[in-house]
Amino acid sequence: MISVEELPTPSVLVDLDVLSQNVARMQRLANEAGVALRPHAKTHKSPEVGRLQLEAGARGLTLAKTSEAEVFAALGFDDLFLAYPIVGADKARRLLALADRVRLTVGADSVEGVRSLGGVFAAAGRRLRIRLKVDTGLHRVGVPPDCAVDVAARIAGLPGIELAGVFTHGGQGYGAPTPEEVARVGRAEARVLAETAAALRSAGLAAGDVSVGSTPTAASAMTGAGVTECRPGTYVYNDRSQVALGSCREADCALSIVAMVVSVPAGDRAVVDAGSKTLSTDPMRPVEDGFGAIVGLKSRIVRLSEEHGVLSVEPGERFRVGDRVRILPNHACVVANLHDELVAVRGDRVEGRIRVAARGKVQ
Amino acid sequence: MISVEELPTPSVLVDLDVLSQNVARMQRLANEAGVALRPHAKTHKSPEVGRLQLEAGARGLTLAKTSEAEVFAALGFDDLFLAYPIVGADKARRLLALADRVRLTVGADSVEGVRSLGGVFAAAGRRLRIRLKVDTGLHRVGVPPDCAVDVAARIAGLPGIELAGVFTHGGQGYGAPTPEEVARVGRAEARVLAETAAALRSAGLAAGDVSVGSTPTAASAMTGAGVTECRPGTYVYNDRSQVALGSCREADCALSIVAMVVSVPAGDRAVVDAGSKTLSTDPMRPVEDGFGAIVGLKSRIVRLSEEHGVLSVEPGERFRVGDRVRILPNHACVVANLHDELVAVRGDRVEGRIRVAARGKVQ
Repeated sequence: MISVEELPTPSVLVDLDVLSQNVARMQRLANEAGVALRPHAKTHKSPEVGRLQLEAGARGLTLAKTSEAEVFAALGFDDLFLAYPIVGADKARRLLALADRVRLTVGADSVEGVRSLGGVFAAAGRRLRIRLKVDTGLHRVGVPPDCAVDVAARIAGLPGIELAGVFTHGGQGYGAPTPEEVARVGRAEARVLAETAAALRSAGLAAGDVSVGSTPTAASAMTGAGVTECRPGTYVYNDRSQVALGSCREADCALSIVAMVVSVPAGDRAVVDAGSKTLSTDPMRPVEDGFGAIVGLKSRIVRLSEEHGVLSVEPGERFRVGDRVRILPNHACVVANLHDELVAVRGDRVEGRIRVAARGKVQ
Repeated sequence: MISVEELPTPSVLVDLDVLSQNVARMQRLANEAGVALRPHAKTHKSPEVGRLQLEAGARGLTLAKTSEAEVFAALGFDDLFLAYPIVGADKARRLLALADRVRLTVGADSVEGVRSLGGVFAAAGRRLRIRLKVDTGLHRVGVPPDCAVDVAARIAGLPGIELAGVFTHGGQGYGAPTPEEVARVGRAEARVLAETAAALRSAGLAAGDVSVGSTPTAASAMTGAGVTECRPGTYVYNDRSQVALGSCREADCALSIVAMVVSVPAGDRAVVDAGSKTLSTDPMRPVEDGFGAIVGLKSRIVRLSEEHGVLSVEPGERFRVGDRVRILPNHACVVANLHDELVAVRGDRVEGRIRVAARGKVQ
């Protein structure tokens, strides 16, 4: 039995007790709200963690890219939603093969995009289940709510396509300055999406699935009238940004990095062996504040090179070469994606490995 | 024979002709300056590319982490410098095993750090070759020049250690506003390091290796009097930041990403299927300006999610769903590290694959 103290640095740790609590808590919220939970597996990209979510009661998993779905389908996951506008006949042929093995649903926000998929399905005498992405305020992808009926009607009329509902991602919650403001974003996200679904139904279009997303807005959006599904991802591990956004407490962060102080070149500067190739350069949300916190201390990582994390040492704190520190990263999802496997722990005890099986699957 | 147009998106491409020119050009500069070239392989992490550099005349390779060196040693590379302050007895045991197979040199900037390595080597009746890192202005790791003789003397007196020289990394060049200013940084980097080496020799200490680094400052630093070696990394692929810094022209960028427009939700916004899990969120240097340029166009990526790259569409430019675009990333080294393999091309012709064999090796 080895302990965290014996692991080589840097190592990415996932505390299994905290992970289980996070999985259970979100499932309980979904059960109480009477909606299906379909976690976004982009956070963990791991069959072990995905199975924990399904065993707790999740309906299926959400992913973004076709290659991620191929990995999860090969590992036996049989109900997948690709919450991403997949485009093109090459991808469509891969989706067709996937649809033989899993209950597959794909996101879309354009007639052209859906047409490029529908042709392949129609030629095979099949229909691809599509959810229309609605922009409820993030202004990334998705049709504006007032265009939704028009686009949905044109999509529903395409050969090889079955319109199944609408979805959105309230990612604008990541910019909200207070937890109250995050909750307001979540309520608006749910209201706008449910109204859009109602408008589709009034126009005679199918809109059975009404799916909201995002960890910060999950609790406030999933209780909205008319919502049928919620797709949070980061909650499974949590991170420093989720703490700052009020989504969780620091004790709810399952993922952390154990690193070593390798240089103390000045009284106000120490350097750890975790850089951007371990932590990523993703900023903290909702307000930028360096690249990682040192658990239990005020000093934080203020600068990153590829293999160096530069700490600004706060008065009263002292680091020595060889010290081991625990880092809470800004963004757990991109940290997991940098590593082939994470170390499963309970407290200081190492329990095994978590494969990041769909790591790097961007196509 | 397949073409770039047939590749799934996003794919990371490396043009072999441009790569060869970059390798040849930097080797020619080193030959003209009369210094050894020891490229930092963190950029490519690839045996194929490393062999090109050695065949062109490089003395050996530079890496940062022990696990990277283990990958390259297993692939037959026999002269490696770890330009990183490795610390601890566990790592020392791995370095001892490496030193059986390769001519190994390791960086250091503290007596405590070197002591943690020397004990293991001394117990085995061996000596580890150490170069002292000198801070010539980056203020990351390294001893200040005026402390170098003292620290070097204490390191040289430790059992199991052979002091072999000094090295520095003029990474402050990445913040220099003009190419002239970058060159000034490079000349200062070389002068301060050579003066430090001279001071060590005056004190009776060995300082045979005088090694400078960084792609932007390479040309100006390697010609400095007393410099014996140069360790640029990014030059092999180049990127948008190197163009902005004046290190190269856009035509010298070997690495690019082919991506697809998957959503055009507004006239001034288009979204491609390359996000931070393809491009990283590393900023452009020396001035922040989004997350990637679209080759041949003015529009650029202004926002990244994990799988979405949001383009700000410039007036007169138009994107349609299904369009393929070529992206020049801010930082080639972290892009390569996100992918298991890159696609080797010549122009539009696909020639093979480049394994990123040491991808994710951070320990």
